[in-house]
Amino acid sequence: MKPAVCLLSGGLDSSTCLALARREGLACYALSFDYGQRHRIELEAAARVAKALGAERHLVIRTGLDAFGGSALTDTIAVPKGRSATEMGEGIPVTYVPARNTIFLSFALAWAETLGISDIVIGVNALDYSGYPDCRPEYIAAFQQLANLGTRAGTEEGQRFTIHTPLILLSKREIIERGVALGVDYALTLSCYDPSPTGKACGRCDACQLRLKGFRENRLEDPARYQEEKSVNGER
Amino acid sequence: MKPAVCLLSGGLDSSTCLALARREGLACYALSFDYGQRHRIELEAAARVAKALGAERHLVIRTGLDAFGGSALTDTIAVPKGRSATEMGEGIPVTYVPARNTIFLSFALAWAETLGISDIVIGVNALDYSGYPDCRPEYIAAFQQLANLGTRAGTEEGQRFTIHTPLILLSKREIIERGVALGVDYALTLSCYDPSPTGKACGRCDACQLRLKGFRENRLEDPARYQEEKSVNGER
Repeated sequence: MKPAVCLLSGGLDSSTCLALARREGLACYALSFDYGQRHRIELEAAARVAKALGAERHLVIRTGLDAFGGSALTDTIAVPKGRSATEMGEGIPVTYVPARNTIFLSFALAWAETLGISDIVIGVNALDYSGYPDCRPEYIAAFQQLANLGTRAGTEEGQRFTIHTPLILLSKREIIERGVALGVDYALTLSCYDPSPTGKACGRCDACQLRLKGFRENRLEDPARYQEEKSVNGER
Repeated sequence: MKPAVCLLSGGLDSSTCLALARREGLACYALSFDYGQRHRIELEAAARVAKALGAERHLVIRTGLDAFGGSALTDTIAVPKGRSATEMGEGIPVTYVPARNTIFLSFALAWAETLGISDIVIGVNALDYSGYPDCRPEYIAAFQQLANLGTRAGTEEGQRFTIHTPLILLSKREIIERGVALGVDYALTLSCYDPSPTGKACGRCDACQLRLKGFRENRLEDPARYQEEKSVNGER
C-alpha cells in the first residue's frame, strides 16, 4: 500500500481529503498541529477522524505559533462573526496565520523524508474560500519545487516529492458532496474558529458560514454540534 | 534602523552572519530553535552571542524535530568522528536533519511577517561545508519565491521578502577572517555536534574539524573550549 503524509486539522476540508486519500488506497500518516490555536479542541476532532478513516498513524506536533501572534486564531484579536459574502470576499482576513501552511508543509516534508514517503496531501482550497495566499496553486507548486531542492531524498536519492491538493479547485458544495459519497461522518469534524469549550461550533465565523452554506447547497443538515442558531451571511 | 530576522544557532557561521548584519546597521531579531538537538547547549551560546552583538531581541522556538528522528543530531544515531576530508566530501552526512532549514526559514518568515520585517538573514554556506541540500543558492532562491507567494505581506501588501545569505560562497577560512575583523568573540560560540554537558566541543566531529581547519588556515587558535586534543582529518 502506497504511503502518504496527510495534513489533518479535523475540519471539513482536511477530513474529506483524508477520505479521498484512503479511497485511493493510500496508507495515511496523518499530521496535526498544536500551534496555540484558540480552537485547539479541533485536535480532538482530528483524532476522531484519523481513527474513523483508518489512518496508519496520527502525530500531533506541538509548535507554538502564538509566540508570534498577529492572527485572530493565535492572538487576542477577535474572530469576525456574521460577515456578509461581500465582506468575506474582500482581501485576506484577520484569521490568516502568518506562514502557517509553509510551516505545516515543512513539518510534513520532514516526516515524509524520514519515513521514506514521497507523497504529501493537503486540503487547501482556492475557490470557495477566503483568499489565504498559502492556499493557491502557484504557492503549492513553489513548495513542491522547494521540497525537491531542499532534501536529501529529493536530490541524492531521486525521490521526487509530490504535493497533492485534491480539493484545490472544488467548491465547498462539491467537497461535501464527495465526502458524503465516501461516507465521511461530518459529525466527527470541527471547522469553527471559535468553538465553545465543549467543542460546539459558533455558527457565525467565516469557517462556520462557509460550511453551513455548503451543506445547504447540498440540501443536507450539517450534523456538527452548534451552540445556537446558525446563520449564513446574516440569513437565518 | 532597518530590521531583519536573523537565524542564530550559536555556531561560528550564524554568529559571524549576525555580526555582518549588525555591521550593516540592521536591527537584528535573532531566532533560535530548541528542536531536540543533542547539542541543545548551543542555545546558551546563541544567547551569549545575541547579547554580545546587540540583537534587538532573541527568541527561542521550541519545536521537537526529534518526534521524527532520522538524523544523528536528533536520534540515537552516532555522530561521525575523525572523518577524513575525502569521507566528508562524500554525499550528505547522517547529521543532515530532514527539512530543517525549510522549517527554520518558515518560522523566520512567520516572525518577519508578524513584525512587518522584509529581510531574513541565514548563515548557510555551500562551499566549505558538507553538502546539505538546504544550504545551496538554488534552494534559497526557491524559498524566497515561496515566501513571496505564501504570505499576506508578499502578495497583498507588496512587501517583498529577501533571504540574505552573506556566507553562502565563502570558505570557512574567509568566514573566520571576516568575523575576526569585526571583532566577533568566537569563545562565545559553539559549533560542535556532540559537546560535553558543560559545553566543551568534542574536537572530532565534522563541525569541529571544519572549524579547526578554518582557524588553522588563519594561523589563529580557536578560543572555544575543547574536551581534549583537537584533530583535523586525522592529523594532530
